[in-house]
Amino acid sequence: MSENVFAYTDGGVTAAQGFRASGVHAGFRRNTSKNDLALVVADAPCATAATFTQNVFCAAPVRFSRAQLAASSGNEHCGSMRAVVINSGNANAATGEAGVDLCREEAALVSDVVGCAPDEVLVASTGVIGVPLTMAPFKQGVPQAVAALSKDGGHAAAQAIMTTDTRPKECAVTIDGARLGCAGATFAVGGMAKGSGMIMPNMATMIAVITTDAPVKAPDLYALLKHAVGLSFNKVTVDSDTSTNDTCFMLASGAACPDAQPVEPGTQAFAVLQEAVCAVCTSLARQMARDGEGATKLVDVVVTGAASDADADAAARTIANSPLVKTAIAGHDANWGRIAGAVGRSGAQFCQEDVDIDIMGLPVCRGGLAQTFDEDEALRLFDELDEIVIAVDLGAGEASTTVWTCDFTHDYISINGDYRT
Amino acid sequence: MSENVFAYTDGGVTAAQGFRASGVHAGFRRNTSKNDLALVVADAPCATAATFTQNVFCAAPVRFSRAQLAASSGNEHCGSMRAVVINSGNANAATGEAGVDLCREEAALVSDVVGCAPDEVLVASTGVIGVPLTMAPFKQGVPQAVAALSKDGGHAAAQAIMTTDTRPKECAVTIDGARLGCAGATFAVGGMAKGSGMIMPNMATMIAVITTDAPVKAPDLYALLKHAVGLSFNKVTVDSDTSTNDTCFMLASGAACPDAQPVEPGTQAFAVLQEAVCAVCTSLARQMARDGEGATKLVDVVVTGAASDADADAAARTIANSPLVKTAIAGHDANWGRIAGAVGRSGAQFCQEDVDIDIMGLPVCRGGLAQTFDEDEALRLFDELDEIVIAVDLGAGEASTTVWTCDFTHDYISINGDYRT
Repeated sequence: MSENVFAYTDGGVTAAQGFRASGVHAGFRRNTSKNDLALVVADAPCATAATFTQNVFCAAPVRFSRAQLAASSGNEHCGSMRAVVINSGNANAATGEAGVDLCREEAALVSDVVGCAPDEVLVASTGVIGVPLTMAPFKQGVPQAVAALSKDGGHAAAQAIMTTDTRPKECAVTIDGARLGCAGATFAVGGMAKGSGMIMPNMATMIAVITTDAPVKAPDLYALLKHAVGLSFNKVTVDSDTSTNDTCFMLASGAACPDAQPVEPGTQAFAVLQEAVCAVCTSLARQMARDGEGATKLVDVVVTGAASDADADAAARTIANSPLVKTAIAGHDANWGRIAGAVGRSGAQFCQEDVDIDIMGLPVCRGGLAQTFDEDEALRLFDELDEIVIAVDLGAGEASTTVWTCDFTHDYISINGDYRT
Repeated sequence: MSENVFAYTDGGVTAAQGFRASGVHAGFRRNTSKNDLALVVADAPCATAATFTQNVFCAAPVRFSRAQLAASSGNEHCGSMRAVVINSGNANAATGEAGVDLCREEAALVSDVVGCAPDEVLVASTGVIGVPLTMAPFKQGVPQAVAALSKDGGHAAAQAIMTTDTRPKECAVTIDGARLGCAGATFAVGGMAKGSGMIMPNMATMIAVITTDAPVKAPDLYALLKHAVGLSFNKVTVDSDTSTNDTCFMLASGAACPDAQPVEPGTQAFAVLQEAVCAVCTSLARQMARDGEGATKLVDVVVTGAASDADADAAARTIANSPLVKTAIAGHDANWGRIAGAVGRSGAQFCQEDVDIDIMGLPVCRGGLAQTFDEDEALRLFDELDEIVIAVDLGAGEASTTVWTCDFTHDYISINGDYRT
C-alpha cells in the first residue's frame, strides 16, 4: 500500500470530527504558566480502545481506567466512553486504594461538569509518584477545562500533558472518504502524546490519546490500536520499556460519515485505516524518541536479516538500550564494535561472519569484520544529521524491525541525576 | 560454613606456590610508562580451567584458547597448561582468521622462550577492536617478560592488563592445610582481574587469572571456577553482560602439597576450596564494579523473596542496568520509584502489594507504597558511604541474589562519549 492512502495535515487530537479538547492550569504544579490539566471530550459516546503499561507496578489511573472499560464492555481494553481527563505533575502512583478512590471522584466530577455518565470517563496521570493526589486542583481546573473545550483545543491539551518534554507532540492525517466507503467525506486520524519511555519519576511516563472520526466498533478499534502501538510506541526506548502510568487511549466517533457502516476487519478500508493509525502513532513515537531527556539526535535502529520477529526486536532493542552505543553517538563516534557487542549479547541467533553494519549509510562492518571507512566523512555526517540510522543485517533470515531511541549526553545525566543537587 | 575457613592475605596471581608472573612494556601502547604485556607461568604443567564470553561476537584469543584447551583434553573448558600471556591495548577482535593465526604465532613464541610446548600456552587480549595485531610487540616484550618472571611479579602483571581501570585488581586468601588434607601446609588461592563489564572498545573487557596451589583435577577445577564465576564476575554489570574478549582462566599447581591426592568433589575439602575461590572471585568482581568508568559509588543490589533464582537475577540485573537508577545514585537521590519501575519490567513474578525496598538501610517502600523517610539522613548517608546497598524484597518466594554495579556520572559520559572530541 502506498503512502498516498492518507495525507499528513496540521492538528492533533481534535483533527477528527466529533471531539473537543482543552488544556488549563489547575494547580497540580506551582508554576502557573504551565498548564497541567487536559480534557478531551467526544460529542457523543464513542467506541474506545486502550493499551496500558505491562509493568507489575501500575498506577491508580491505570487500574481505574481498566476497570471503567471492563465495566462498559466486559473487556478492559475497549468500551464506550465520552471523556478523557489527564493531569500532569502528579502520577497518582504508589498511592494504593486511596489513589483509585480519587480517580473515581475525579471521574464523577468530570461527568458532572461535562454532562455524561461517570462510567464514561477515562483518567490518566503523569508526574511524580508516591505523593498523594488531592481533589482540589481538579475542583478548580475541571470546570475551567470544560468551559475552554474547543475544536481548536488539541494543541492546548498536548501542551498540558507535557512533563520533561521540551515540545508538544501532535500528528494528524486525513483519508479520502471513498477509501472508507463514504465518497465525498474526509476522514481524519489525529493524536497527541507526551513522554519518552522514562519510567516513573522524574515526571515522565508515556501517555497518548488518538482520535478518529471513522466508524469502527470498539473491539476492532482495539485491534487497530494494538497493532499500531506494537509498531510505534512499543518500539521507542530511551532507557526502559514500561512505566507505572503508560497509557494509550483511542476513541472513534464515526462523525465524519454518521450513516456509514463500521469499517470491518479484513476489508481494504480496514487496512487503509490501520495504515493511517500506524502513521499517526509512529510520528508521535518518533517525536518522543527525538525529545528523549538530554537528546541531541534521533536514532533509528534498523535490524534486518533476523531469524524471527522476536530476534529482530531483541537485537534492535539491545542496541537501542546500550549506554555505550548511546554515549558513542553523543560523542560522534561511529563505534560499530559497541553495536556488535550489543547484538551479540541480545539473544538473537546469528553467525558473526554473516553480520553487516552501516552507520549513517557508511559500511563499517562486513561479514563481522572491521571495514575501513572515511572517518572525516563520518564526523561530517554526525555534525549534519539530526537523525542517525544504525542498520544491522544479521544474515540469518527475513525478519526485520525498527526501534527508535536517542543519544545519551551530559544533559541526560544532569536531568536524571542532578535535579536534587 | 564460616568465613574462618580461609584468611585474606596480600598478593594476587602469584600468592599460590608454583607460579611466577611479570608485567612489561612491549609496545602495544605508545605510552612507554604503561606496561602492556603480562605473563603468568607455572613451574610445571597445571590443571587448568576457563570460562569465556557468551557473546556471539568473540575475539581471536577466545577462539584460540578454547581450541588449545580442547586439544589438550577434548573439553574447551579445561586441560593442562603452563603459561598465560595477556596483552592490553589491542583486543585482537574482529580480526578474523588472521587474528587466530597471530595467536598461534604468539603462543609459539612464548613456548620457545619459556621452554614449554606450544600447546601449553593460553592467550588473552584486551583493548581496541578491529585493529590488526602484529607480532612485533610480542617479539620485543615476551623475552623481557620471561626474564622478569618472579614470585613477586603478580602486581606487575595486574598492572599490565589494565585498560580504563584506574586501579589494579588483586586478591588472595590462604587456607590451613589440614582443611585440604595436608596438615602443616598452607594453601593459597589468588588472582588478578581487569575491566568492568564494558564491551569491546573503548579498551575494556573483563579478563581474570586465578591460581591455586591446591591439587585439583582439571574437570573439577572447571566446576569450582564455573560456580564461582556465576556468583561473582557474572553478577557484575556496569552496562552490559558480555564482551568479545571476556575470559577467566584458573590454574591449579598442587605445589603447596606435592604428594597430596587431588581434592575431590563432594568432600568437605572441596567445599572449603570452593568457598575460597568464590571469595577471591567476589573480591575481584566487587573491585571491578567499584572501578566502573566514572563511578563514584559501588552499588550492591540485593534481591530477596524472589520466586526463583532466575527471577532474583532478572530483578537485580534490571535494577543494576537501569540508567535511571544509576543516575539517581550519582545525584544522591533515594529514588525508589525508579527501582520499582525496573523490578516491575524485569519479568520477575510478584505482586506490587508485597514489595519492600530499602536504600542504604532506610525503608523507602513497604507493601508497594511510598514510606516517609528522613531525606536529610538519606543525603548524609549518600555523602558518607562509598558503597550503596539497594535491598528489594519481592515477597514472592525464597530465592535471592546480589548483583554489583556502580553509579552513572558525567564522567561516564565523558569517558564513553567524548573521547574523540
